[in-house]
Amino acid sequence: MAVYTDVSDDELRAFVAAYDLGEVLSFKGIAEGVENSNFFLRTSRGPFILTLYEKRVREEDLPFFLGLMEHLAARGLICPVPVRARSGEALGTLAGRPAVIVTFLEGLAVRRPSASHCRAVGAGMARLHAAGRDFAMQRPNALSLAGWAPLFARAEAEADRVAPGLAGRTRAELDALATLWPSGLPAGIIHADLFTDNVFFIGTELSGLIDFYFACTDALAYDLAICLNAWCFEPDGSFNLTKGAALIAGYESVRPLEPEEARALPILARGSALRFMLTRLVDWLNVPPGALVRPKDPLEYDRKLAFHRRVESATEYGWRK
Amino acid sequence: MAVYTDVSDDELRAFVAAYDLGEVLSFKGIAEGVENSNFFLRTSRGPFILTLYEKRVREEDLPFFLGLMEHLAARGLICPVPVRARSGEALGTLAGRPAVIVTFLEGLAVRRPSASHCRAVGAGMARLHAAGRDFAMQRPNALSLAGWAPLFARAEAEADRVAPGLAGRTRAELDALATLWPSGLPAGIIHADLFTDNVFFIGTELSGLIDFYFACTDALAYDLAICLNAWCFEPDGSFNLTKGAALIAGYESVRPLEPEEARALPILARGSALRFMLTRLVDWLNVPPGALVRPKDPLEYDRKLAFHRRVESATEYGWRK
Repeated sequence: MAVYTDVSDDELRAFVAAYDLGEVLSFKGIAEGVENSNFFLRTSRGPFILTLYEKRVREEDLPFFLGLMEHLAARGLICPVPVRARSGEALGTLAGRPAVIVTFLEGLAVRRPSASHCRAVGAGMARLHAAGRDFAMQRPNALSLAGWAPLFARAEAEADRVAPGLAGRTRAELDALATLWPSGLPAGIIHADLFTDNVFFIGTELSGLIDFYFACTDALAYDLAICLNAWCFEPDGSFNLTKGAALIAGYESVRPLEPEEARALPILARGSALRFMLTRLVDWLNVPPGALVRPKDPLEYDRKLAFHRRVESATEYGWRK
Repeated sequence: MAVYTDVSDDELRAFVAAYDLGEVLSFKGIAEGVENSNFFLRTSRGPFILTLYEKRVREEDLPFFLGLMEHLAARGLICPVPVRARSGEALGTLAGRPAVIVTFLEGLAVRRPSASHCRAVGAGMARLHAAGRDFAMQRPNALSLAGWAPLFARAEAEADRVAPGLAGRTRAELDALATLWPSGLPAGIIHADLFTDNVFFIGTELSGLIDFYFACTDALAYDLAICLNAWCFEPDGSFNLTKGAALIAGYESVRPLEPEEARALPILARGSALRFMLTRLVDWLNVPPGALVRPKDPLEYDRKLAFHRRVESATEYGWRK
């Protein structure tokens, strides 16, 4: 939950006046999003989300994110669409920060996804990959193999404070993945953060995808590996094979996996579990005093990593040839 | 900002199913309110606010608060109205807490009120007082004279840690007010917490009052004294006489003050400043570890108190006979 920046009503009104959005009727900070400040904004034209980009999002990446949302929406994917000011610009400045108004999506994020939610998110992700195919911009994945070692360097000395042995087994995992990491897999635009908070449903129907601020160009199957981690484990740490099978089948109903993608899945799952363990570990060790955000537990992903290390083939995730 | 309780989508859907509100379309925690957890809820019937009452609101007081909102709304005051379930009950249970769905009010809370906002809030408060006149229930003000000493007892030993001399001058103020506190003033329903966050505007038009969870039966002019504190001081601590005059004139445009109310205003202003200083002081000294709420500065009200001690008559607040 997060609202990092205060916006005065005068600043807000001046900002909205640059758009064809009519009068501001309501404005409330939303307890969602850990990277940015988000506000629910209602104007006489309808509901919108106003996002202020805090320092964790690099300003030079914003044209990629905003362009991608426009591109995907134009191809029928339901996602927030940046609203352009009368100047033609989608990106503005509010309270000293880069700021964007996007369309509001209906729908609920599920806390406890069922297999049918997993199937729907698999299919939705594959539609995203298809819709992104002809997007012209590129953005390397800063949180893939090359990014993990520098991230670990920031946490290594204190990792054993979080759990004894964590530093050693993370180092071993980094070394192993440096050797095992696949290359040459089908690549394109991936969401890279498709956790349950970023997928909306109305009933069991997927109603939209949000939060494209980790989107990048990488192996498509890596996105699937992230979702296996985010959607298919139970709160007790066990892997739910029915959900895994539903996620993969949903994905393949739109875009069948290549054989080499299926073969790479266990390694991609390890890599994506390591990525979330590392970012959570760094956050965990760097909670600023007086922080309003409670960090997420890195050990959840350390345990998932241990699970994936024992997996030998994609069939153990529910994949069927 | 606060969302203290997690609500799962299954719990939410089951809860909303007891109402004639159609399908849940959206549900987001709101970074507002320090006593309760508040959520923005959109159903196919429109926008609503869902409130979960956390432990600071006493459950036995809820029928008073909910009954009051219904009563005031029925008399034309724009305030949230509790929505009744098909059972006829407005009060339900969600995630183990008392929970209520109320109607959504449009409007913006102003951060930097102008004199015209002050005039509007004065008039709105007087309309609230008038609309509350025939409300049948009573609720004593737990945060008036009799409540301050026990509150201070919880903070006295540590008060000088917050500011040297604070304990001594607060004790002296308590003693002085015990002697000076007026009785027999015109009484009725007061809001008792009409800070800027609880008053919505569209432009300079007042569009609604919210958050009735401190409402009680007390001297009407005490409510005006609270607003003098909350609306008429500048960020640098100075009192803005133009705003004070506008607030009082707005109030009197609906309900003229009795001479004894005007006479009591400086003492009532001291009492209300002391009340907010004390509750903030207790919160300041009792921030739980890992709290997601940043406490408000008690010294802001210690300084306002010092201002009021030097005031000799209501004319210094801008009152004109």
